[in-house]
Amino acid sequence: MDPSEFRRHGHALVEWIADYLAGVERYAVLPRVAPGDVRDALPPSAPEEGDSFDEIFSDFERVLVPALTHWNHPGFFAYFPITASASGVLAEFLSAALNQQGMLWRTSPAATELEEVSLSWLRQLLGIGDAFEGVIYDTASISSLHALAAARQAAIPRVREEGLAGRRDVGALRVYCSEQAHSSIDKALLMLGLGLASLRRIPTDASFRMRADALRAAIAEDRAAGITPIAVVATVGTTSTTSVDPVAAIADICRDERIWLHVDAAYAGVTAMLPECASHFAGWDRADSIVVNPHKWLFTPFDLSAFYCRRMDVVREAFSLVPEYLKTAEGSRGVRNLMDTGVQLGRRFRSLKLWMILRHFGATRLRAVYREHMRLARGFAARVDEHPDFERVAPVPFGVVCFRALPRGLSLAAPDVDALNERLLDAVNASGDVFLSHTRLNERFVIRMAIGHLRTTDAHVDRAWQLITEHTAALARPR
Amino acid sequence: MDPSEFRRHGHALVEWIADYLAGVERYAVLPRVAPGDVRDALPPSAPEEGDSFDEIFSDFERVLVPALTHWNHPGFFAYFPITASASGVLAEFLSAALNQQGMLWRTSPAATELEEVSLSWLRQLLGIGDAFEGVIYDTASISSLHALAAARQAAIPRVREEGLAGRRDVGALRVYCSEQAHSSIDKALLMLGLGLASLRRIPTDASFRMRADALRAAIAEDRAAGITPIAVVATVGTTSTTSVDPVAAIADICRDERIWLHVDAAYAGVTAMLPECASHFAGWDRADSIVVNPHKWLFTPFDLSAFYCRRMDVVREAFSLVPEYLKTAEGSRGVRNLMDTGVQLGRRFRSLKLWMILRHFGATRLRAVYREHMRLARGFAARVDEHPDFERVAPVPFGVVCFRALPRGLSLAAPDVDALNERLLDAVNASGDVFLSHTRLNERFVIRMAIGHLRTTDAHVDRAWQLITEHTAALARPR
Repeated sequence: MDPSEFRRHGHALVEWIADYLAGVERYAVLPRVAPGDVRDALPPSAPEEGDSFDEIFSDFERVLVPALTHWNHPGFFAYFPITASASGVLAEFLSAALNQQGMLWRTSPAATELEEVSLSWLRQLLGIGDAFEGVIYDTASISSLHALAAARQAAIPRVREEGLAGRRDVGALRVYCSEQAHSSIDKALLMLGLGLASLRRIPTDASFRMRADALRAAIAEDRAAGITPIAVVATVGTTSTTSVDPVAAIADICRDERIWLHVDAAYAGVTAMLPECASHFAGWDRADSIVVNPHKWLFTPFDLSAFYCRRMDVVREAFSLVPEYLKTAEGSRGVRNLMDTGVQLGRRFRSLKLWMILRHFGATRLRAVYREHMRLARGFAARVDEHPDFERVAPVPFGVVCFRALPRGLSLAAPDVDALNERLLDAVNASGDVFLSHTRLNERFVIRMAIGHLRTTDAHVDRAWQLITEHTAALARPR
Repeated sequence: MDPSEFRRHGHALVEWIADYLAGVERYAVLPRVAPGDVRDALPPSAPEEGDSFDEIFSDFERVLVPALTHWNHPGFFAYFPITASASGVLAEFLSAALNQQGMLWRTSPAATELEEVSLSWLRQLLGIGDAFEGVIYDTASISSLHALAAARQAAIPRVREEGLAGRRDVGALRVYCSEQAHSSIDKALLMLGLGLASLRRIPTDASFRMRADALRAAIAEDRAAGITPIAVVATVGTTSTTSVDPVAAIADICRDERIWLHVDAAYAGVTAMLPECASHFAGWDRADSIVVNPHKWLFTPFDLSAFYCRRMDVVREAFSLVPEYLKTAEGSRGVRNLMDTGVQLGRRFRSLKLWMILRHFGATRLRAVYREHMRLARGFAARVDEHPDFERVAPVPFGVVCFRALPRGLSLAAPDVDALNERLLDAVNASGDVFLSHTRLNERFVIRMAIGHLRTTDAHVDRAWQLITEHTAALARPR
């Protein structure tokens, strides 16, 4: 593609994207396609001779656009909503063109140092001390994997050299998290060779928060049985209900027991910018490591996970490894090379979008948006609370409301209430105007209303509530 | 940023990027900055009030552009050159705006199915059979990590549940690769809890290829010592010299010994598209898993690693884990969800760029470009061979030439030859016109000339050779 062609197609894409982002509400949030539709609409093999970009783009519009789930739709209330903000999209466009590969300082001084600067900015906004060094990974799965790898490195002598297998001097190991912790913790333990049995899920209280007393008892019980605790994962903003583990009490336990504390604040961490949320974060800066995901609620195009660690030297001990072909004069003089903090050698220029977003929004506006999303969530929760046909099943510390329909006058057995709520969720999502997801709490099917998209307003939340109440009424009607 | 602002800044970026890509040769390949320059030029904290995109972009040009290493420069001959091709850059722009998160089919049918389609297209171009299922990861480090995790899963009963630690029924384990294999294999073993001691590096022949006889002997010796072999990593295109392990012979051994065979073809795999390269790939489709990196030599903006596995069910056994909040009706009907094949839950819409690039280039042009790069490399190698002041130190199967200066008439001790070549490399790189990197072979410092950027021509290779010969002459002159 010559420069003039690039200009032509680039300008056309700018117009298309501007129209798309401004007009995304003309699409159903969830696409109306069946499995196989995309595959079957495309040729089975690559072309021998190249196609023009116009032809390719035409197929993109014809086949792919109808199969997009519109994470950009302000009626996206499923999982945790994310936003590709304009400054983030422009930064990614630049980043793709610059094609920096920041494995070494030398291979991109800009990417290496902007990662340090932008993570320092974010760290200060979050109120975590400068004892924490940061690194950007792709996902929270990878951040928590490195946290637990570092915990293993700190706990087990010579694990880097000798590993875990066939060692008489290494017994059973244990990692603790709450019943509500994210599946990425399980997956990290699978990867690390610890196995699912090494994970002990600590019971939660009525608000789905880890019970610190139960954690202390579990550690004592394990120690008595000869099991070595290596890490505790506390969550600020769990996936199902956004519940907040008592981090300060857990930090006390980890200090007493000398166990690595990792705080998973992938979703809710950004709200540490708000003074009124301070209580949720009490003690989190006593953790050994923290993960916060700007691609969740910091309006950053996917992917960008920020990992902070006060013992990054342990991460380096676990992973640093410099083959001859990657040795540089700067490296031998102690300049930071991103490849030393982790398993991935290559590093994308992700810091560009974080830096541009923090600058373009500014701290004041970020705080205002979080407050608005929480206001919307509280308003939705109030409607649930006031309506006799619904029950709210968890507190609402951030932007997520967990609830279910329980229509008056119907005396349904538990499985039937679940079935009614499943049908309700499907009916609401079939509207195309909104997309909500579900979870299961105390073995009951629960609907999650998650508010966090940048362009979500009262009108979108109103529409969700209207659909929910109308469909509930229809489902509750005798047939 | 409102839509009109997005349009204005987007159009300006299109112009900037077009100018940048067309005019990248006005920059020095390696930037002339010192460690700390970028950090010190930026404010220590994020702004309270947002800045305009014009202000941000002005700082981008003032502070960051002078600190870029220009991977887009056609004089980039270091490591393995990469290219952000125009269609790839446009695809990434779209992908950022669409902000798909393809963890589940439901969260992006387009991303899920296009990944299948584009990987099938690439697989057919590479000539690997359809017994191989593909998945896209970020880097070869992550691809090989999953390959070795699957090998561990296949070899060790109940490793998913029980892990490796404290088990009397699991003894020492072993993974084999050549002395020339990439450091990502070491890092994978660190992550997996196998430890560096589990890696046995098999000696290579005079052409830096793994010696199959030595591999067979090592396995026998290990088995006799009670060590369990779990995987062999064969490399097609090693990092230092692009040497090619004898994959067919290694595959025979792995078949006889029932050991997982992983083929690391991250760099050279794409040349399987060329019939004249068939001998390098003999037997590779008998591997259990293969990694090929489109972000290396398929003109794909970083990052995109293609992982092919004929036993993807084992990868799923190792990592699949579906919490309630991610259960979907499609999932229970057997539709593929990307999150099941790996440790990362979130998946970016990377297949869009691979699909657009394969379509825009077409197979014919890809083959032509690879042939041109190899022609340039052979031409450079011929000059080295013909010049009395240089020696070539490895065969040139693809696009990389390893050589060193050994000026006539100077009788230098080995360390002085190394020092001369180090000075030569620094002097050549200081020109700003080219960037080459180095390795060490048989304990000697060796310069690598790696040709693979889309816009590299004879003129750029000529310039490199001119700089190399001129500086060698200057360094060899008596002082």
